[in-house]
Amino acid sequence: MRGLVCHAPLDLRLDALDTEILGPQQLRVRVAYGGICGSDLHYFQHGGFGTVRIKEPMVLGHEVSGVIEAVGSEVSGLHAGQRIAISPSRPCGVCRFCQQGLHNHCMDMRFYGSAMRFPHIQGAFRETLVIEAAQAHPVADDLPLSEAALAEPLSVGLHAISRAGSVFGKQVLVTGCGPIGALLIAGLRRAGAARIVAADIAELPLACAKKMGADQTINLVQEPDGLAAFAAGKGQFDVMFEASGNEKALVAGLDVVAPRGVIVTVGLGGNVSLPLNTLVAKELELRGTFRFHPEFAVAVAFLNQRLIDGRPVITDIVAFDQATHAFTLAGDKRQSMKVQIAFGGEAS
Amino acid sequence: MRGLVCHAPLDLRLDALDTEILGPQQLRVRVAYGGICGSDLHYFQHGGFGTVRIKEPMVLGHEVSGVIEAVGSEVSGLHAGQRIAISPSRPCGVCRFCQQGLHNHCMDMRFYGSAMRFPHIQGAFRETLVIEAAQAHPVADDLPLSEAALAEPLSVGLHAISRAGSVFGKQVLVTGCGPIGALLIAGLRRAGAARIVAADIAELPLACAKKMGADQTINLVQEPDGLAAFAAGKGQFDVMFEASGNEKALVAGLDVVAPRGVIVTVGLGGNVSLPLNTLVAKELELRGTFRFHPEFAVAVAFLNQRLIDGRPVITDIVAFDQATHAFTLAGDKRQSMKVQIAFGGEAS
Amino acid sequence: MRGLVCHAPLDLRLDALDTEILGPQQLRVRVAYGGICGSDLHYFQHGGFGTVRIKEPMVLGHEVSGVIEAVGSEVSGLHAGQRIAISPSRPCGVCRFCQQGLHNHCMDMRFYGSAMRFPHIQGAFRETLVIEAAQAHPVADDLPLSEAALAEPLSVGLHAISRAGSVFGKQVLVTGCGPIGALLIAGLRRAGAARIVAADIAELPLACAKKMGADQTINLVQEPDGLAAFAAGKGQFDVMFEASGNEKALVAGLDVVAPRGVIVTVGLGGNVSLPLNTLVAKELELRGTFRFHPEFAVAVAFLNQRLIDGRPVITDIVAFDQATHAFTLAGDKRQSMKVQIAFGGEAS
Amino acid sequence: MRGLVCHAPLDLRLDALDTEILGPQQLRVRVAYGGICGSDLHYFQHGGFGTVRIKEPMVLGHEVSGVIEAVGSEVSGLHAGQRIAISPSRPCGVCRFCQQGLHNHCMDMRFYGSAMRFPHIQGAFRETLVIEAAQAHPVADDLPLSEAALAEPLSVGLHAISRAGSVFGKQVLVTGCGPIGALLIAGLRRAGAARIVAADIAELPLACAKKMGADQTINLVQEPDGLAAFAAGKGQFDVMFEASGNEKALVAGLDVVAPRGVIVTVGLGGNVSLPLNTLVAKELELRGTFRFHPEFAVAVAFLNQRLIDGRPVITDIVAFDQATHAFTLAGDKRQSMKVQIAFGGEAS
Repeated sequence: MRGLVCHAPLDLRLDALDTEILGPQQLRVRVAYGGICGSDLHYFQHGGFGTVRIKEPMVLGHEVSGVIEAVGSEVSGLHAGQRIAISPSRPCGVCRFCQQGLHNHCMDMRFYGSAMRFPHIQGAFRETLVIEAAQAHPVADDLPLSEAALAEPLSVGLHAISRAGSVFGKQVLVTGCGPIGALLIAGLRRAGAARIVAADIAELPLACAKKMGADQTINLVQEPDGLAAFAAGKGQFDVMFEASGNEKALVAGLDVVAPRGVIVTVGLGGNVSLPLNTLVAKELELRGTFRFHPEFAVAVAFLNQRLIDGRPVITDIVAFDQATHAFTLAGDKRQSMKVQIAFGGEAS
Repeated sequence: MRGLVCHAPLDLRLDALDTEILGPQQLRVRVAYGGICGSDLHYFQHGGFGTVRIKEPMVLGHEVSGVIEAVGSEVSGLHAGQRIAISPSRPCGVCRFCQQGLHNHCMDMRFYGSAMRFPHIQGAFRETLVIEAAQAHPVADDLPLSEAALAEPLSVGLHAISRAGSVFGKQVLVTGCGPIGALLIAGLRRAGAARIVAADIAELPLACAKKMGADQTINLVQEPDGLAAFAAGKGQFDVMFEASGNEKALVAGLDVVAPRGVIVTVGLGGNVSLPLNTLVAKELELRGTFRFHPEFAVAVAFLNQRLIDGRPVITDIVAFDQATHAFTLAGDKRQSMKVQIAFGGEAS
Repeated sequence: MRGLVCHAPLDLRLDALDTEILGPQQLRVRVAYGGICGSDLHYFQHGGFGTVRIKEPMVLGHEVSGVIEAVGSEVSGLHAGQRIAISPSRPCGVCRFCQQGLHNHCMDMRFYGSAMRFPHIQGAFRETLVIEAAQAHPVADDLPLSEAALAEPLSVGLHAISRAGSVFGKQVLVTGCGPIGALLIAGLRRAGAARIVAADIAELPLACAKKMGADQTINLVQEPDGLAAFAAGKGQFDVMFEASGNEKALVAGLDVVAPRGVIVTVGLGGNVSLPLNTLVAKELELRGTFRFHPEFAVAVAFLNQRLIDGRPVITDIVAFDQATHAFTLAGDKRQSMKVQIAFGGEAS
Repeated sequence: MRGLVCHAPLDLRLDALDTEILGPQQLRVRVAYGGICGSDLHYFQHGGFGTVRIKEPMVLGHEVSGVIEAVGSEVSGLHAGQRIAISPSRPCGVCRFCQQGLHNHCMDMRFYGSAMRFPHIQGAFRETLVIEAAQAHPVADDLPLSEAALAEPLSVGLHAISRAGSVFGKQVLVTGCGPIGALLIAGLRRAGAARIVAADIAELPLACAKKMGADQTINLVQEPDGLAAFAAGKGQFDVMFEASGNEKALVAGLDVVAPRGVIVTVGLGGNVSLPLNTLVAKELELRGTFRFHPEFAVAVAFLNQRLIDGRPVITDIVAFDQATHAFTLAGDKRQSMKVQIAFGGEAS
């Protein structure tokens, strides 16, 4: 069995991995599709992000779907051959945050493909994977497994929406329309936003945003003042999602969000310089959002019922043995949105 | 100019009405369609409901759309010939509730066709109507005015949803699938409910509920214990909307809503006997919902954008001069959902 | 070692109990004081309440303080001789409610002295008690252990307050001023209620309510219309706590609570008949409250810091061997508020 | 009649002012005491703050109490000789924010002594003042009018607390213990915070913070790492109030506030550089707070009932004709907290 291991920046290898032992409450899964996330890309391109660095070879990946191959002796309700989306979130359940229902802040989280801890938590870009039964979410018969692999980034979007409070009937701005931003837009439409304006600096993501449900798109390269009109009357948006990780976008947002409005920062960035006077005088709220937990089940339900259609986001599906190509493609925002790797699990 | 005046129970007449004077910030509107609401029906059938009684002849109706015929001298942004939905909500703006943003609790509300005050507030079932410019909500070119007249009952549904907090990603039960329940279900689907179960005692509303987005429907006559399975594990629903006005439905809901769940009572009823022990031990919340205010603009936006499709709810459109027939039809829940009266305003 | 065992209604015995084994993460405690709660009284008087019945002999009691006698091998930060308040709340930590942070709704709760399950959960009215270390909350040197035993009923009050949302700066009504109502009033004053009106049908609890911080008290026997003035302008109270378990009090509250106001029902009662029209038209919220969990630590902190003074609530302290007298006293609302039993643990 | 007029930085004059005409719904008030606020000081020291500049002579001041001298013909419930605290908040009542209940964001606010608009809104540091009757809040007989003049800065603190959601039972940090910070601490104690830690760089405000209710004070000059211990376990505080306007304090707070914690920024500052990664990964919320509106009535109620004692905050009361000295004193944080000017209104 092989996995996709990052040894160093730009050094990605298909290494043979030991087969994992199947515990009584576990499942062995043949991985079908895995989407490349921004953090995977950071490990590949730079060996990490912020203060997080790869210090030992690490299997990448956490956005995966697959087919159950074997079922542990104590598992009920699941069977071999079943098609599933796999949640990469494995909180401890006992720390003070888990006991408050804040599992995404678990003190002992083991999230696939993360170098935040050492030894690193090995990822899911591999041919077979042993998971806890609770991580498996059955997929509708007519939902392709590549779309099922969008459940993870969609969960990130759904959690961001829940962080905003409610968006039902609200005027919403999304800055940054990469895969997360685009899935977030689909989530916003589903969550009942009355109007969704999407801004980005490239055409491909804006075209995708439109397909995902945005009412209006603004190319900030072509129209640098494209947001200015929304500043009228102290601001026209109730809620803003900043998904570009760009300081300018965040600062521009302070002018177009109405008093008591909420700005959810989805994108990780470094230090940003904020005009605190504006935030204070308008009583704005800047809220972070980080991963997800219960939202994974909801994301799968929405995809299964076709209440959210993720197809416009998937621009490329690349074979397992061409993974480096897949990562290069994923790094080019003008050419690709979500790039997925096919691990062959479906065909077997 | 004629209006539909209720003189006494079952005594509905097409009376000539004085033409109203057009003020500088007002619009004169030719009424196109008017939907018959439960309160209209109560006035027609019984002369009122609860302690509210018709004490003088009263024009009925508050769910109307129309075409602007004349524009007051100080109105901007609206013009003759424009097609609009008309909000019947006219709060004073200055009482303590208006100043808290709770306009639906205005101490001096003038809601069309209501005998709650004396002199009564005359209604909108008439050929022409003078309204405040702020009551007019322009309708998309491709939205039929009969559908636009659903904006009012849809607003009731949207407000009920906002009363629930957030339903995004939640498990929801709706008991009672008349016009309000059915539009509420469409609102719930749009607001991102993960699963919607609808219950009623008749087939017509259940079939409509399905078309409006319910995942599952239960006929409580055919399956008296149809909800029992949802009581497992202290209850499976996060939120319930009780729109039948039936005591049994409300009491049954206490068993199937999970601890800390919310029950929104949409239907007006008389005294109900509640097992308080259950409400206390599960820390349930019973919340009233009453009319709407800002939701009207959102309802029109959803209809205009086809984010909500109200067509399955409209079962009958009856000519102005056959109003008594329309009211008789509206009173038969097995034959009709929303019955609308055509006032001719569109054709002129 | 002896405990206070209820064998049947009015049949309370001081039985010898087996000494419990001390586990590594446990403490053995000499019980000092135990307050008689309404549920203890129901077991004593009637053998239960609602559908809950004593089916085997059960040690009563769950409001206790004590002195640590022995410490398990893996316990750190606690030592023999330490004075503590003991939380009776022992949720499982793993069920779906615990994982949502709703520990008071645990599917497998073991709450002291409760016949809700069979075998019953034995109570804490005994000379020594083995507890989990996490149940122990150290008490300030200058806080008498009898006052520390108020931490439990105070927790009930604090949880009720948290159920109301926020009471800071609000107008609040409390109906029913027994021990829970009185401690709730102290909590409300501490939580920043701007005005607290307390109503009851007896003088003793009203006098206590005044000492605990009520701004105004109303004796509903002497002034049956004492609340009527508060109905002006659709209602003057933002929040109401119904702690009498009386249907009339709840119904009267619907008239004096303002639109969108919250009514928290603290008292357990049977079926109540509610005018649903009022709840709907005013969009009131009726919320249950049940026990507590994180509030126990806060209650001890408030008592330790003297931010809440519980002394006016304790009317009687009775020796262990006169327990039947203590229960008789506790049953007479005109003579007593909180009756505590001294188990001798402090003296040893 | 004279007023205290700022003509330019450091140029403060006692100018004669025209007597204002008394309207039918107004009151003429002899001003008793006026507290010097940070914004007054900025006008005096620098002629403004941020982009706000004095462009014409402006009477300063907005924290005032006084005695009613004359009552307009349509005013009821108030009479000459009555002692009052005066709210400086005069929203329009009709703009979209007022109609949402967000009066502090009024599009047409006329707040005393503010150069945010031109012509400037003249302030309340004058011998007599004509106000709307609704601005008058009667003061308890035994509350000195100098303490009543604290109602305004206390309202700022109470509003900041309401912006935090609820602080009841919470662990709270306050950085910056000037007059606003100190009154905020008193508000937090009254609002039921379980623990209040106060940090500043000077001894005088810390000593005051202690008197106002802080459990623990930290001098960040003497203990630069005084907050570090609170960073354990992802952060120990539920809520933080940043009232120093210092970037370092805000950034330090991100480490000691727990995941999902709230940071309310009370102090106005310029641009601040924030580590957005921390805010995102811990899902912190940064919320602005700005002035107040309904809180003024609550502040007066708390002062009247002695539920909050503001006396430790008032360090100096200076005569009207020594105003420049008063402003110099107010600018020295090591010597003074709240400096008030006596306008003589009480004595007359």
